[in-house]
Amino acid sequence: MDIAMIVEGKARAAREAARALALCSTRTKNEALQQMARGLEEKTAAILEANRADVERARAAGVARAFLDRLTLTDVRIETMAAGLREIAGLADPVGETVEAWRRPSGIDIARVRVPLGVIGFIYESRPNVTADAAGLCVKSGNAVILRGGSEAIESNTLIAAVLAKALEKTGAPPDAIQFVEVTDRAAVAAMLTLDGLIDLVIPRGGEAFVRWVAERSRVPVLKHDRGVVHVYVDAAADLDMAATIVLNAKTQRPSVCNALETLLVDHAVADRFLPVVAARLGQAGVELRGCPETVRRVPGARPATPADWDAEYLDLVLAIRVVDGLDAAIEHIRGHGTGLAEAIVTNDLGRARRFTREVDAAAVLVNASTRLVDGHQFGLGAEMGISTSRVHARGPVGVRELTTTKFIVHGDGQVRD
Amino acid sequence: MDIAMIVEGKARAAREAARALALCSTRTKNEALQQMARGLEEKTAAILEANRADVERARAAGVARAFLDRLTLTDVRIETMAAGLREIAGLADPVGETVEAWRRPSGIDIARVRVPLGVIGFIYESRPNVTADAAGLCVKSGNAVILRGGSEAIESNTLIAAVLAKALEKTGAPPDAIQFVEVTDRAAVAAMLTLDGLIDLVIPRGGEAFVRWVAERSRVPVLKHDRGVVHVYVDAAADLDMAATIVLNAKTQRPSVCNALETLLVDHAVADRFLPVVAARLGQAGVELRGCPETVRRVPGARPATPADWDAEYLDLVLAIRVVDGLDAAIEHIRGHGTGLAEAIVTNDLGRARRFTREVDAAAVLVNASTRLVDGHQFGLGAEMGISTSRVHARGPVGVRELTTTKFIVHGDGQVRD
Repeated sequence: MDIAMIVEGKARAAREAARALALCSTRTKNEALQQMARGLEEKTAAILEANRADVERARAAGVARAFLDRLTLTDVRIETMAAGLREIAGLADPVGETVEAWRRPSGIDIARVRVPLGVIGFIYESRPNVTADAAGLCVKSGNAVILRGGSEAIESNTLIAAVLAKALEKTGAPPDAIQFVEVTDRAAVAAMLTLDGLIDLVIPRGGEAFVRWVAERSRVPVLKHDRGVVHVYVDAAADLDMAATIVLNAKTQRPSVCNALETLLVDHAVADRFLPVVAARLGQAGVELRGCPETVRRVPGARPATPADWDAEYLDLVLAIRVVDGLDAAIEHIRGHGTGLAEAIVTNDLGRARRFTREVDAAAVLVNASTRLVDGHQFGLGAEMGISTSRVHARGPVGVRELTTTKFIVHGDGQVRD
Repeated sequence: MDIAMIVEGKARAAREAARALALCSTRTKNEALQQMARGLEEKTAAILEANRADVERARAAGVARAFLDRLTLTDVRIETMAAGLREIAGLADPVGETVEAWRRPSGIDIARVRVPLGVIGFIYESRPNVTADAAGLCVKSGNAVILRGGSEAIESNTLIAAVLAKALEKTGAPPDAIQFVEVTDRAAVAAMLTLDGLIDLVIPRGGEAFVRWVAERSRVPVLKHDRGVVHVYVDAAADLDMAATIVLNAKTQRPSVCNALETLLVDHAVADRFLPVVAARLGQAGVELRGCPETVRRVPGARPATPADWDAEYLDLVLAIRVVDGLDAAIEHIRGHGTGLAEAIVTNDLGRARRFTREVDAAAVLVNASTRLVDGHQFGLGAEMGISTSRVHARGPVGVRELTTTKFIVHGDGQVRD
């Protein structure tokens, strides 16, 4: 059987299951999530064994240590996956929520009500825990999911997905709602992307080039996360202690993620006072600095930045720094180099804070807070499939609500159109 | 200059203008809409002259009379276009609306606020009044628009778009926010569809094949209206007088539009009583009936339906009728043949009404009301770009609100992530 046929078969099964899952009660979906958690716990030994095969293969291929670490499962990590599923069970069910409702002069009552999107195609890379998160979020939001994980974790993911699907059998939820594509050939992804009509939304999670590859050829709508070239602008009216704390946190708390700081912009008026202090603290934290000439003059340890640095998503302990002439120049820099994920200003000037939040175009704009707070959990929205930099459908953290659409329900007493 | 370069130039101009328009106040945008209305009125003679050229060309090409009628402008029709723009000025501005706002335990305040999508690509067919509607809705929602009308109305549309863009000069709104692609070659559309990054959303309005052509090749997200194979199900517990009135209205009030009825489903239990009555009234209204064997037995004037009739979007005074065995069979028929636009049940049974509204998957599901009510104006949402059968971003009538996205605005006092 060829790859396209295999993928289409799974999509058809998912489509059927989606219809049944959409009508399952919140209680049934939560019970399914509890069973999924229990399934992972009961199959821990088998999952660890499958994972060992992946890890050994990766080690033989000579991958980097950080990669090996992300790939490796342990008892504790499997327990964390199960806890994640139980946490999703505790989230409010978005399905059935009335978003708004009103009565028209003719007497018809109109309600806009949340319903599942249908079938989600989720394409991701190596970390096996993502399999459980994604399946859990889809089940909670009443969507069937077609999971397509990276080849490096194929043994782990195949087993985890099978355990999760099997767990649904013990409940009223349809086991076919969780599909896993074992074919690691990229042709399997290409096949998914042609299945408009069977798949309602594709969410690719991975490197920039891969996400672009998906977006460029998909006939299914794509919710994507491009890149996170994230800025903090330290304004002339900033509390400089607060600014240093925010910059340190945004850059170093977890540098490898999309909402970590990449370029620091500093108003010329406070550069003399701020830069030496923050540079010393960043240096202590092991951050390499690359600055504009104005920065290098004030921070002798900083390397001169090249034009490429202003567009770099380092995802590492490296920071670009540029001194700018006030708010307009900061906004202009962000306009030219930002990727629309998260942008922050540190200031105590109300007028400039207002202008920054209005004029900077990003999924999240922050005043006096770390960009690392842009996250479903930190926002209080629960677990997330990722952070969308798309403008349509959902922008920012993609949680269970963003996996729904709405329908209008109209009740009348025989009303017709004149 | 080649077509792709022309289109890209317009998209770049629109992108620049979008940034300025996004920051315009409601007052400025409303003043722009008033000036656009005034511009159409002042240029009525020139617009009528341009339109005459289109009409003469169409007549020489021997197009159908209904088509000629839609293409032809008159003083009254231009006044109606101007009135439409003034009506849009009167709508609430969606931009700046706080959709939700909350405080987190850490003390950060989060607000989700509506902002314009950016640049809309609107691709449509012949009726010149659509040019003014689309431009008006985009200006009100703070979006730049690239209009690409059909070749039949090219003279009319080119002038109308120029008048509308020129009108913006008298206000603080950027004239480049209204772009018109005069190139009637389909290559111009193809070029628009490659401009992800410059165009944020494409809305194609036209025949089914054309919309599919756009959706299949677009790298820009598409909001589409596929087809409207619309059903009314007359349940055993229906008020049969009400049912007949709804069926007549849904089929005959304006048969050429997407929310008009195409297939009538009747519960077997009431077929004997209902079908002869409704068939007589439909016959008087000039509707041709095509029925299943059970229908034909009860309605001698009905022609036997072929399988193709169950999937037909007649857009004309033709109705397919099928007798079904109760609610489950009706839902199953709609599942197999519906296109997800509008579906109605006529019943006084609460349980079956509840099941129908939950289990039928469509942009709008109606109980005891005509499907012709599924419309932005009828819903009280104002003018619309069309009715979306897409599931992502917006489903149902697409008005000014659906042309926006949101951004998160976070205010803190130095909060960081632990």
